[in-house]
Amino acid sequence: MQNLVEQLNFKNGLIPAVIADNESKMPLTLCYLNEEALRKSLNTGIIHLFRRSKGKLMKKGGTSGHTQKIEEVRVDCAENSLLIYVSQKVAACHNGFFSCYYRRYNIEEDRLEIEGEKVFDPDAVY
Amino acid sequence: MQNLVEQLNFKNGLIPAVIADNESKMPLTLCYLNEEALRKSLNTGIIHLFRRSKGKLMKKGGTSGHTQKIEEVRVDCAENSLLIYVSQKVAACHNGFFSCYYRRYNIEEDRLEIEGEKVFDPDAVY
Repeated sequence: MQNLVEQLNFKNGLIPAVIADNESKMPLTLCYLNEEALRKSLNTGIIHLFRRSKGKLMKKGGTSGHTQKIEEVRVDCAENSLLIYVSQKVAACHNGFFSCYYRRYNIEEDRLEIEGEKVFDPDAVY
Repeated sequence: MQNLVEQLNFKNGLIPAVIADNESKMPLTLCYLNEEALRKSLNTGIIHLFRRSKGKLMKKGGTSGHTQKIEEVRVDCAENSLLIYVSQKVAACHNGFFSCYYRRYNIEEDRLEIEGEKVFDPDAVY
């Protein structure tokens, strides 16, 4: 995967990746990969990311078992970001929802509204 | 929109927004908004972004006319990014493709392959 790595524009060592559901095509989450996370993701076929808040490489779903199997990798026109379609186990969000984008912004009332149902109980998993 | 602005975690003044097609739900591009771009987007219903390479606020599609009408705004679980579903005029990518993610990575051959057809001729538009 040397060609890909050289082509991508890592910024401060990271590149953002939109993770989307391979079935519905809906975005699930946005994560950041460093070169090591990208190599590990492609070599294993499972999303690994660089968690900025913890400053380290992690397997997505490492604790919960809610892993993401890579189905397709796409690169944007400027080589500044990735789009990765995955098969998601159970749910992507640690709050129990399938997608991290489970809240819709109500513009008129200036507030967030929960959309969709909880798939699992976070207290029972973490 | 004061509540939303205060809730979001702008990093160095910016927040990333995944822009996705409201019809197919497929991601089209990733852009960055500062507070002013977010306010202008919500007030006008048309995506405005902060173009990092030019250091300024711009209307997406301002030159080409390929604007993005906001249909729905979603916020991720950590308030670190937005997902905005839009009605896309013509195409999102300045290279002539509907989505900026028009290249698929062929893992075995370590190269990018174009997927999908050109919607317009960039030389005729820009």
